[in-house]
Amino acid sequence: MHTTVGKDSEGEQMDFSEIVKKRYATKKFTGEMIPQDKIDELLDLVRLAPSSFGLQQFKVKVVTDKEMKEKLQAASWNQPQITTCSHLLVFCAYTDVPKRIKQFGELMTAAGVPAENVQGFTDMTSGFVSNLSKEALLAWTSRQAYIALDHAMLGATALGFDSCPMEGFDAAAYSKILELPENTVPVVICPVGIAADEPRPKLRVSKDDLFF
Amino acid sequence: MHTTVGKDSEGEQMDFSEIVKKRYATKKFTGEMIPQDKIDELLDLVRLAPSSFGLQQFKVKVVTDKEMKEKLQAASWNQPQITTCSHLLVFCAYTDVPKRIKQFGELMTAAGVPAENVQGFTDMTSGFVSNLSKEALLAWTSRQAYIALDHAMLGATALGFDSCPMEGFDAAAYSKILELPENTVPVVICPVGIAADEPRPKLRVSKDDLFF
Repeated sequence: MHTTVGKDSEGEQMDFSEIVKKRYATKKFTGEMIPQDKIDELLDLVRLAPSSFGLQQFKVKVVTDKEMKEKLQAASWNQPQITTCSHLLVFCAYTDVPKRIKQFGELMTAAGVPAENVQGFTDMTSGFVSNLSKEALLAWTSRQAYIALDHAMLGATALGFDSCPMEGFDAAAYSKILELPENTVPVVICPVGIAADEPRPKLRVSKDDLFF
Repeated sequence: MHTTVGKDSEGEQMDFSEIVKKRYATKKFTGEMIPQDKIDELLDLVRLAPSSFGLQQFKVKVVTDKEMKEKLQAASWNQPQITTCSHLLVFCAYTDVPKRIKQFGELMTAAGVPAENVQGFTDMTSGFVSNLSKEALLAWTSRQAYIALDHAMLGATALGFDSCPMEGFDAAAYSKILELPENTVPVVICPVGIAADEPRPKLRVSKDDLFF
């Protein structure tokens, strides 16, 4: 359990390796709310996550309402993280990529990129997306959401609180409960809060089993 | 371009927010090799990335050979990152999940987890995997590889060098060139090295477009 937000238990600034080692999948939170300014910092970090073509093909539903969490818990194998966390982040693949292409084009224009280059980017990415099947589009946008998820997990640790990546939930039920449009598909969730458990040692295969 | 490995340009330790802001998709590297001990540190960080059920359903091919890079560049739209980087990390979805379940069971046993719990874990995860279609298995394992990718990108910045996530390559050609087995599917690549370009401002949609 962390009591000093933004620092490790000795109050020292952590380096990246310490953050990676300290992060763990928290099984239960205290129910304490994370201050809004810290959540804002976390979302700022998530917003800076990279994505394919820079298109940010994801959205994140941020849930704090108690009743809503209880409904979602019932659609999450009743896992205690859902109702004991501070903020529940629901990472969604966002399949309205044409909208993101338009938005990115506007950002490029505002940044002074010549119109010809903006058009080239728009044509190239639009062509790429139009060649994807519905399934491939969802798989591709989902993968980008996982990069943002990792920024969130590491960010939570860096900011002095805890998180838990979870795939064990009923995505269709989440869509219904959260009234999500068809283009916003929940793919992974990440409750964040103050841990009420202790980390267990990380179990990892050897480097030879991972790298070759 | 970074000249002080592990520090920012003023030689200061970076905090996580600075790492996130400093990371960018490097378009060209200097060709300089990153010392092996720094690469080992990077791979240690990647190895600690979380994954679904902790199963590490990914593998990473590490390419340094010049001729191999040239062959791969031809299968990567001739993008200059491939031959100018120090190490090319080819993130692969690893679909032999039964092997990983076995390995994780052994790690649990070695960590003192009771045999009954190991068996329960093995049964549960084996059941989960056996219910996945071939496409769903690949999509699921691919998403885990993207979490590891993010650890690599942030880790490279933290260690004082640069990276570039790339989806623009011919996966089938990569499999052939690298002689990868069918269960090891390249899904995203990440050259790392010393940048020979300068970052451009990050373009991001507003928080209201991402969070709701």
